[in-house]
Amino acid sequence: MTQDARLTAQFAFLNEADRLKSVLRATTLCDGSRRENSGEHSWHLALYAMVLADQSAPGVNIDRVIRMLLIHDLVEIDVGDVPIHSENGQAHASEATVKAEQAAAARIFGLLPPDQAASFRALWDEFEAAGTPDAIFAKSLDRVQPVMANLQSGGGTWITYNVTADQLETRVGSKIARGAPRLWDWVKAQTTAFFR
Amino acid sequence: MTQDARLTAQFAFLNEADRLKSVLRATTLCDGSRRENSGEHSWHLALYAMVLADQSAPGVNIDRVIRMLLIHDLVEIDVGDVPIHSENGQAHASEATVKAEQAAAARIFGLLPPDQAASFRALWDEFEAAGTPDAIFAKSLDRVQPVMANLQSGGGTWITYNVTADQLETRVGSKIARGAPRLWDWVKAQTTAFFR
Repeated sequence: MTQDARLTAQFAFLNEADRLKSVLRATTLCDGSRRENSGEHSWHLALYAMVLADQSAPGVNIDRVIRMLLIHDLVEIDVGDVPIHSENGQAHASEATVKAEQAAAARIFGLLPPDQAASFRALWDEFEAAGTPDAIFAKSLDRVQPVMANLQSGGGTWITYNVTADQLETRVGSKIARGAPRLWDWVKAQTTAFFR
Repeated sequence: MTQDARLTAQFAFLNEADRLKSVLRATTLCDGSRRENSGEHSWHLALYAMVLADQSAPGVNIDRVIRMLLIHDLVEIDVGDVPIHSENGQAHASEATVKAEQAAAARIFGLLPPDQAASFRALWDEFEAAGTPDAIFAKSLDRVQPVMANLQSGGGTWITYNVTADQLETRVGSKIARGAPRLWDWVKAQTTAFFR
């Protein structure tokens, strides 16, 4: 691959990635003014990782977590965002969603030069599998940020989907606590007034 | 500072950062559908750094570049985006803008716990000063991304501000070339059809 062909492939990927800014999530901005898109969500999460690094387990590599979070939602360009609380919490990791996201990953990361296609895909697979300390912490942050948005905006998707405190614990809290137990203790305390 | 007070400060910062998603830039999305905001722009730039790492000078630390790009525009929460081609290219680094951005940095990074307030501010100062290899490469990427958006959307801010090929070279190309000379050669070649 010539250097020019490499740049052509890299920009095919970077231009395609722009479309993530048009994928809307169920969550709104903190001021409730509009729905958040998955591009700005990915930025906010990477900032979460920078700021909340000291909540991670020993051995977590925050720079890898940041890279994971920057690419974690790119498959939504093809699949869209599947809200965690939608369809009574059943749609998010359904077999159909997983299969569609795998195809999207093949297409989108496949735009990159072969070496980067492989390394980006491996990082995304690691995030999805949630089996390494880095991925577990990244998943925790991905669950915390919508909680904070809902708290700021007065309920957000908890109202949309009639979420109970128990459902929040099962679908969200358990995932946050797995990678950042002290963080969930603190966040949960902020939510008690809403779910009282 | 107790651990709870630390988290309270960290989330004061992270919630305030959400407002960057409402700061609009002059540039549109690649599909021209709407103006880009500075939050999603920051995400896209961090992805640029991941993908275009091999265009950086020897010794550049891409993870530091990514962190720099994640926080580089936060001051716009108070100051707004100052388009590079506005006021005939004079407004961007004017004394008034620089002064306002310094005050914004003090306020916004000052929301963090003291150790992070200092380290985030130092990283932002380094970006602004554009004197280190990491900052110089970060600045290059910050100039490349709007060029690609304009190319995709059919002219974008080049039309808005009647930009000539010479002005693009002076205001944009020289900054890109400083940190990534081969990258500017390639990007410039893409722009020749538009400026013909």
